[in-house]
Amino acid sequence: MKIAVDAMGGDHAPQEILCGVARAFDKGFVRPSDVLLVGHPERVERWFAEAPLLRQCEFRPATDDVAMGESAVKVLRRPQSSIMVAMDAVKSGAAGAFISAGSTGACVAAAWRVLGPLKNVDRPGIAVTFEGANGPLTILDVGANIHATPEHLLQYGVMGELFSRNVLGLAKPRVALLNIGEEEEKGNKLVKSTRDLFSTAPFTFVGNVEGNQLLSGKADVVVCEGFVGNVVLKVFEGVGHYFHDAVKGPLQDPAAQQSPLGHAVRKVTQKLDYAEYGGAPLLGVDGLVMIMHGRSDRRAMANALRVSAQFVKADVNRQIRAAFDAAASAGGAGA
Amino acid sequence: MKIAVDAMGGDHAPQEILCGVARAFDKGFVRPSDVLLVGHPERVERWFAEAPLLRQCEFRPATDDVAMGESAVKVLRRPQSSIMVAMDAVKSGAAGAFISAGSTGACVAAAWRVLGPLKNVDRPGIAVTFEGANGPLTILDVGANIHATPEHLLQYGVMGELFSRNVLGLAKPRVALLNIGEEEEKGNKLVKSTRDLFSTAPFTFVGNVEGNQLLSGKADVVVCEGFVGNVVLKVFEGVGHYFHDAVKGPLQDPAAQQSPLGHAVRKVTQKLDYAEYGGAPLLGVDGLVMIMHGRSDRRAMANALRVSAQFVKADVNRQIRAAFDAAASAGGAGA
Repeated sequence: MKIAVDAMGGDHAPQEILCGVARAFDKGFVRPSDVLLVGHPERVERWFAEAPLLRQCEFRPATDDVAMGESAVKVLRRPQSSIMVAMDAVKSGAAGAFISAGSTGACVAAAWRVLGPLKNVDRPGIAVTFEGANGPLTILDVGANIHATPEHLLQYGVMGELFSRNVLGLAKPRVALLNIGEEEEKGNKLVKSTRDLFSTAPFTFVGNVEGNQLLSGKADVVVCEGFVGNVVLKVFEGVGHYFHDAVKGPLQDPAAQQSPLGHAVRKVTQKLDYAEYGGAPLLGVDGLVMIMHGRSDRRAMANALRVSAQFVKADVNRQIRAAFDAAASAGGAGA
Repeated sequence: MKIAVDAMGGDHAPQEILCGVARAFDKGFVRPSDVLLVGHPERVERWFAEAPLLRQCEFRPATDDVAMGESAVKVLRRPQSSIMVAMDAVKSGAAGAFISAGSTGACVAAAWRVLGPLKNVDRPGIAVTFEGANGPLTILDVGANIHATPEHLLQYGVMGELFSRNVLGLAKPRVALLNIGEEEEKGNKLVKSTRDLFSTAPFTFVGNVEGNQLLSGKADVVVCEGFVGNVVLKVFEGVGHYFHDAVKGPLQDPAAQQSPLGHAVRKVTQKLDYAEYGGAPLLGVDGLVMIMHGRSDRRAMANALRVSAQFVKADVNRQIRAAFDAAASAGGAGA
C-alpha cells in the first residue's frame, strides 16, 4: 500500500520533503514503490535530479499552491492543490495513507470532506506522541477540534487507546484526562462531565493528570480538548527550543558533546523534538492521515514515513471501526 | 507594612516555610519586624528555637489545620485556620500582604471572601512570572478562574500590564493573547471575542501568541483563561523537572558543573524553576496576596518574601484601582 506524500506542504517544501523521502529510502524505512509523490511538476523537478530514486515513485501533478496561512476551508475549493490531489489518491485507493506538512487546518478539512469520518465517529482528533519517562505518551486532541463535547473526548479516549496499543505496541495503555488537579471535583465543566463518561469507558481510565505529570509516566494516553492540547504541544516545542538554544553553544565543544552531561542533554532535547516522531495521525477519518509540523525538515519527513509505514501495517482504523461498531450495537460508551 | 506568612500552608510546612523566613532575614530581603507569622503554636515552636530571629516576628496563633486536598470553600468555615487568620490580619490592617503555600483554591476563596474584589474587578486572577528570552514574562490567569468571559480576560490584561510595569519595572509591557495560531481568525469563541475587546484596550496589544512563543520574548504579559493557564504553568514545571532529572546525575561531577555546558544547563533549569520567583500574586483582590507552590521549599519562601516586599512597595493595587476607576467613568475598556 502506497503512502501519498504532499511534496508542496510545509515551510521548507519541496526541498526538505523530497530530501526526507530520499532519506527514508536510504534508511530503509520505505522503498520508492511505497511512495506516491504529489507536487508541482516544475518545482519538484530539480530534486528528482539530486535524488534519482525519487523518479521511481509514482507521481501525481498538483498545480495549485495553498499558502500556510490560508483559511482551512479554502483548500476544499482547490482540487488541484497538492493536499486535495493527495487526499483524492487515498480516497480512490491509489494510496493507503496521506502525509503532509501543510496547513494543519487544511489537512483536517480536506480529510474530513474527502475521506469522511469512520462510522460513528463524530469528530477527528490529532494524536501526538512524546517520549515520556517510561515509554511513549500520546496526547489527543492537539488541535483538530476546538469545540469538543464530553462525547468527543470519550471517542478520543477510545481511538487514542487503540492507537497506543496497536501502533505503539503498549500492552494495556492507561488513559487519563488532562485536568488542573488530580481530585475528582477539580476542573471545568467539560472535564467534569467527561470524567463521568470515562469512568464507564471501555479502556483503563486512571483518572486526572496535571500538566506536570504528562512526562512522568502516570498515563500512556492523555485526552484533552483541541485548544488546550494545541497549547500543550506548542509549549513543549517552545521549551525544547529554549533549552536547545541555551546549550547549543557549549555543545559545539567536542569534549562537552562526548561528556556524560552532553549525552544527557542531547537525549533530553531529542525527546522533546517533534522531528523524532515526524508526524501526528489524524484519528477518526476513513483513511490514514499523518500531519507533520509546518517546520518539518528532512529528518522529520523521513521519520514520518517510518511511523506511517507502521501505522499502515497496524491497520488501526480496522480496530477503531470494530470498537465503535461494538459500542454502537451495545448502545454503550464510545458510541 | 508587615507581611502575614501562613506558616502551616504547603507540603513542607511549617519547617520549610519558617526556615525560608529565616533565610529571607539572612539574605536581607526583609527584617523580623516586617513579618507577621501565623501558625499552630505547638507546631512552630521548635523552629523558633532553631532560628531565634523568628521570635522577633509578631505571631498570631491558628489552631485549625486545612489539608491541601480539602475543598476550597471549606476553609471559609474555618476561622481558626492559618489561611483565615492571616487573611483577617490583612483585612484588619495588621498586615499589608499575605503569603501562603497552602491550597491555591482555599487562598483564592478566602481572599475573595475576606478582602473582597477591588472596585469594578469581576474576578481575581493569578499571575505567574517566568524568565523569558529578553526579560520577565507574566502569564495570567493560571487557575483562579476557570469560567472566564472575554470581559474577565480584558481585566486580566489591564491588571497584568500594571503588574508588569509597576512591580517588574517594564517600561511599556506588550500584552498578548494566548491562542493556537497567530492569525486573527484562529482560536475558540472565547479568544476570538476577547481579541475584539483587546484591540481597543488601554494597553499595548501585540496580538496572539502560541505556546511555543511564550518564552521567545514576543510579549511581556500573556492573557489566557485559568484552565489553560494552569495547564501551561504545570507543563513548564513538568518539563523543568524532566530536564533536571535527566542532567542531575552527570551534573554531580564537579568538572561538569564548572564547564560552560554545566553553567548553561543550570541557568536554564533555574529559569524554569518556580522557586526562583517564589510566589504568584492574586490580582484583583483588595489586598496583596501571594500564592506559593504547594511544594515550596525554604528558597522559594525566601524569594516569595523578596518579591512580596517589592509588591508591597510598588502599591500595584492603587494603580489597578485608578485604571479601573478611569475606565468606569469613561464607560470604556477595563470597566
